[in-house]
This record gives sequence, structure tokens and C-alpha cells, in this order.
Amino acid sequence: MSTSRVHAVVMAGGAGTRFWPASRERLPKQFLPLGSDPDESLLAATVRRINPLVPNDRVWIATGAHLREPTYVALPDVPKVNVLAEPIARNTAPCIGWATWAIAQTDPDAVIMVLPSDHFITDEPGFRSVIARALVPAAKGFLTTIGIVPTRPDTGYGYIELGEEIGNGDRRVARFVEKPNRQVAESYLAGGKHLWNAGMFFFTARAMKEAIATHLPELRESLDAVFAQGGGDDVVAKYFPTMPKISIDNGIMEKATNIAVVPGDFGWSDVGSWESAWELAHRDAQGNALPPGAIAIDSERNLVRDMGSAAGKRVFALVGVSDLVVVETDDAVLILPRSRAQDARMVVDQLKARGECKT
Amino acid sequence: MSTSRVHAVVMAGGAGTRFWPASRERLPKQFLPLGSDPDESLLAATVRRINPLVPNDRVWIATGAHLREPTYVALPDVPKVNVLAEPIARNTAPCIGWATWAIAQTDPDAVIMVLPSDHFITDEPGFRSVIARALVPAAKGFLTTIGIVPTRPDTGYGYIELGEEIGNGDRRVARFVEKPNRQVAESYLAGGKHLWNAGMFFFTARAMKEAIATHLPELRESLDAVFAQGGGDDVVAKYFPTMPKISIDNGIMEKATNIAVVPGDFGWSDVGSWESAWELAHRDAQGNALPPGAIAIDSERNLVRDMGSAAGKRVFALVGVSDLVVVETDDAVLILPRSRAQDARMVVDQLKARGECKT
Repeated sequence: MSTSRVHAVVMAGGAGTRFWPASRERLPKQFLPLGSDPDESLLAATVRRINPLVPNDRVWIATGAHLREPTYVALPDVPKVNVLAEPIARNTAPCIGWATWAIAQTDPDAVIMVLPSDHFITDEPGFRSVIARALVPAAKGFLTTIGIVPTRPDTGYGYIELGEEIGNGDRRVARFVEKPNRQVAESYLAGGKHLWNAGMFFFTARAMKEAIATHLPELRESLDAVFAQGGGDDVVAKYFPTMPKISIDNGIMEKATNIAVVPGDFGWSDVGSWESAWELAHRDAQGNALPPGAIAIDSERNLVRDMGSAAGKRVFALVGVSDLVVVETDDAVLILPRSRAQDARMVVDQLKARGECKT
Repeated sequence: MSTSRVHAVVMAGGAGTRFWPASRERLPKQFLPLGSDPDESLLAATVRRINPLVPNDRVWIATGAHLREPTYVALPDVPKVNVLAEPIARNTAPCIGWATWAIAQTDPDAVIMVLPSDHFITDEPGFRSVIARALVPAAKGFLTTIGIVPTRPDTGYGYIELGEEIGNGDRRVARFVEKPNRQVAESYLAGGKHLWNAGMFFFTARAMKEAIATHLPELRESLDAVFAQGGGDDVVAKYFPTMPKISIDNGIMEKATNIAVVPGDFGWSDVGSWESAWELAHRDAQGNALPPGAIAIDSERNLVRDMGSAAGKRVFALVGVSDLVVVETDDAVLILPRSRAQDARMVVDQLKARGECKT
């Protein structure tokens, strides 16, 4: 690894409905301050968190063309040329393939980490230690992933089954399993052989190029063609629609044999709903996470987020209400119990059915 | 009554905290659309309701100097000279006295009705019928009031005890009683001899001038002096602070003997809290009173009022919440259960304790 350099690819595309009205098609979750710091977006936190390991000129942002501008704004210190804006979404395999080819062009010995942009991590030094550890099997040629040590029988995540040991406590992956039912999830938790798949990958550019050539030869051909023709936006726009629409999990990780997993336990959350946002937020002694200056009388465990242009200019007053989520933007207000946080998407569905543009 | 003319004095001073954040010291309740029409203030409704009986040039508005401008805005068709703006509040006796002297100056045979500006009435033709009926004993020289037929043992109102009949079903007032306790209120309701005091009064200018001369001679002296010196704002400003700070009830009605009461039953509400506002509002099949375009999923009996400058531009979405009051203005948001509507004032108290100017 002496001459290799570590690059990071932050996956920042996608569009969510779970954080409506704060998230929109043109402002997905990663651009929102949903972690503990109400002034830092999840995307900015993702980059800041790895900066001690990877300077900004080796941070690459994979996003969609419609998110190019908000990405520049969110990450003013990342070079604009490092923002890879897909003309259309083709799932993660073409996305990671493009980033791998782009990095390899100037840095063929690169070791690459791929990270989601919309997760939250409590123990940042612990996270960096696990990254450093995952880079070791990656540098040896393993396609390496971090598996999160589960804390509950969650049925919302894919799981990674641990295989044989390959040294240093790292393991081969026996198999990837889809989201289990409750009973299976409980057996996984009890058995201690399954970790959550958090979508973090570590590999050398060489290993990923080989894996794509082996398992997704069409994708390899398209990517070779893109870079044979200079790799410019116009060439990408021409070839991207021809690439297979497949995830890196289905297309590569579940097929390749040189897959390793490193366990991680650093206070991870995929920030799946307003309920998660409440859990992560700084809360007062009554369990409330409220805008500055708010008044709460006989009110507990509420999350209030004022995310419009009037933020900071309005006093929020709660009297006798508990376990509520209140989110305000310039064009929408959402009020629901924390226990129904997932149902924010029901509102988006109704708005879409109406043909309204507030989604 | 052949040469007499009917004038109306609408009492529109005061400052409330029960409708915070919509009501403020400089925008009390009567300026808010708290009745069934979200576009009509209670004050405007009060004047519109009596216009079939009293044209705008005989409508007088008694208010405070700090409310002069909002009054002009709320009632563009009432002549500005008919707005009597008190330099300081001295309770209702000086207020009604001033109005009586002012009206009598040009219309000595006037019959005057005094009405609160911040009540709501469902049956407007029924209300006008009762007014017409109350004007009869008033024209005969009785200081006449309307007593609301009680529908519940309310402990929040003063009561009027019926005395001997004086013809046409009208009665003398045996006595005025202060807000009773629950047990007494229940006996009043069962007994059928008590009506709610709704603060509506009917009298000739002559009768009121006599009553004030008899029971509040200091007030008569001040008012005579004001009008001997032309009655201008500067003269009022000089004499008003010298007038006794006393209500028309305590100062006149409870002392005079020529007091009559006419029962009224026309769907009256004093609009005492956000709970009342919900009761009066147009509600959908789920019992919700929401801004246009709102989305309510599994949500019932809520009142949502968007009273800021963004009104109409935001979609409100409720999921799984019931019996809530949500009020939004440009600088404040209030959320509380309908059952705690009275506690809006607790927020005002806290804001005042902080020295904030949002009250």
C-alpha cells in the first residue's frame, strides 16, 4: 500500500419522502441537518468525518445532475471536478463503477471507500478506526464492507452473515441476506453471526475494475468507452443510459468471492425517519428538541424543526402536548406523533395524487 | 319614539391574551376572524350584523387610542369621526358616558344600543328581532339589557335575575349577580329565573344622562366640561384621566331602579378561547377546521389557523393527531390540545416574564 492513496466516494443521489416537508425531490435528506448539529447537513458531516483520513481533493461526490448545485453549496471545499453528477439514476453499480474508473485514471493504485451521505455516526473517532481497519483487507484485494453490530432485531436492514476468519478479526462474507422478518431478525440478533449492511464499501480501484469486468461486463464496456472518449459530461450523458440498472450489492458483492467484512460499532443510524431525527437531536431535560427560545409547558419528548426562511424569528409554544413531530418550511407544515413518523410519506402520496408541486 | 333615532355604540377596546399568538396588545380579539367566516373579523361582523337596523353613520366605535388605525382598517365604511378613541382606558362607564354625550350633542332624542365587539352570534335575524324588542322598553326610559337564556351552568359569566313583568314578556331586573360557583350556577339553570349578562345595553341618551347625573355625578361633571369645551381630542385627553374608573354594571346598572331585561336566545358566544373558535368554525366531516388545501390523515376535531403573511401559501398536513389547536403567525406558533385552550395565556405570561415583545 506504500504508493496507494485513499479516496472516498460519497453517494449523494436519491430522493426521499420520509423527511417531507424538509426533504424534497430537489433537496433530499442528505442536504438536511438531521443529525445532532442543527446547522450541519448529513452530507457535510459525512465529509467532515472522514477529512482526517481523506483530504477534500480525494473526496468524490456521486450525485444526480439535478443535485449538482446544492452539492456545490453544501461542500464548498470539495473541488467541483470531483462532483460526479449522473445524467440519470442507474442504481449504485454504474455509479461506483464511474467513480472507480474516474479515480483510477489518475491514481491507478487508489484504495477507495464508498460511503452513504445520509447516515449519522455518534462515535466519529471509533468510525475512523474501523475505516482504517477495513482499508487493510481492501488493500489486499478484498472487496470489503463494514457490518454494523446489531442492537435490535431490526427488519428494515439487509444483513451480512459472517464467514471464515481471514485474520485480524476480519471475516469473509458467507452471504448477504435481504431484510428478514421479525422472527428471523431475532434469531440473527441472538446468534451473533449477522451484521447490518450499512452500504459502506472499501476496495482497490484494481479489484473493483476486475470485479466489474467479471460480473458486469457490459458495464465495463460502457465505462471503458466513456474514458476512451475523454470521460467528459457529454460522453457520460451518452453512455450512462446504456448501463445496467443494478445495485453494487446485487451486481458485485453477492457474486464475488473475495468479499470481507469488518464489524463496526460506532453509534450508527441510517436516520430513517423524523423519529430517528428526534433520537439523534440534542434534547432538553424534558426530552424536547425545540428551536431556540421555544416555550414548552407540560410538554415532553417533542421534535420541532423550523426549516423555513423564518427560522429563528418565531417563538414556538407547546402546552400540554407530548411525543409530537412538528416540521415547518416556507410552504408546508407537518404535525404527527413520533410513533407515526414513517407516515410522512402518506402526505407526499396525497400531494402527488393532487398534482401539487410541494413534494 | 317618532323623532328619535337609533345609534349603536360598539365597545372595541381591551386587550386579550386568550387568543395569543393571533391576538396581541395592539391587535386584540375583536380584530380577528374568530367566527365562522375566516375572512371577517368579529368587529366587522358586529357592525354588519346591525347594519339592517343602524346605518354606518349612526355606528360609533369606542376604542383605545392605540387601536385607532386598526379600527379604521377594519371598518372602512364607518365615518372616522364616529371612532371615539380613549386616551387611556377607564372601564365602561366613562366610555359609554362619552359616547352618550357625543351622540346627544347632535341627536338629543337618540336611542342608543351598546354592544360588545368581540362576540359571535349564530342567528342574526333572531338577534335583530331581540334588539328591536329591547328598544321598546329602552324608548320608554328603561335602561335595558339583553339576558342570554343559559344553556349550561356556566361559571364564567355574570347572571341577571329576573324581576317583575313590565309587559310584552320583558322584566325588570331583580339584581345582577357576579360569576357564581358551580352549585349556584346549576341552581340558576334549573330555576329558570337567571340569564347570562352579555354586556348589551339599550337606553335613551336622556335616560343615561340622568342615570349618570344621579349615580356618577363626577363623571357627569367631567363629560359636561368636555363638551362645553368643544369635545375635541385634546379636551378628552385632558379630562379622561380624571373620570372614575368604573364599569357601567357597577356604576349604573346595579344602582338604578329603572332597569329592564329582554331574554335572548340567538346562538350567542363570547368567543372565550381557541376552543370556542373551534366550536364556531366551519368544520369538515372529521370535525377539523383547517386552512384550505390542508391534508388530514387519521386526524379529527383539530383547529388550525394560519394567520401570518404566508397564509394560503402553505399546506398543513396532519397525520394521526386529534383535538389539537395550531395557530401560526409570522413570529409565533402555538400548539396545544383543545382541552387546554385557556392556557394560551400561560405562554403570554412566560413571554412577558422574559421581556419578549411578542405579546
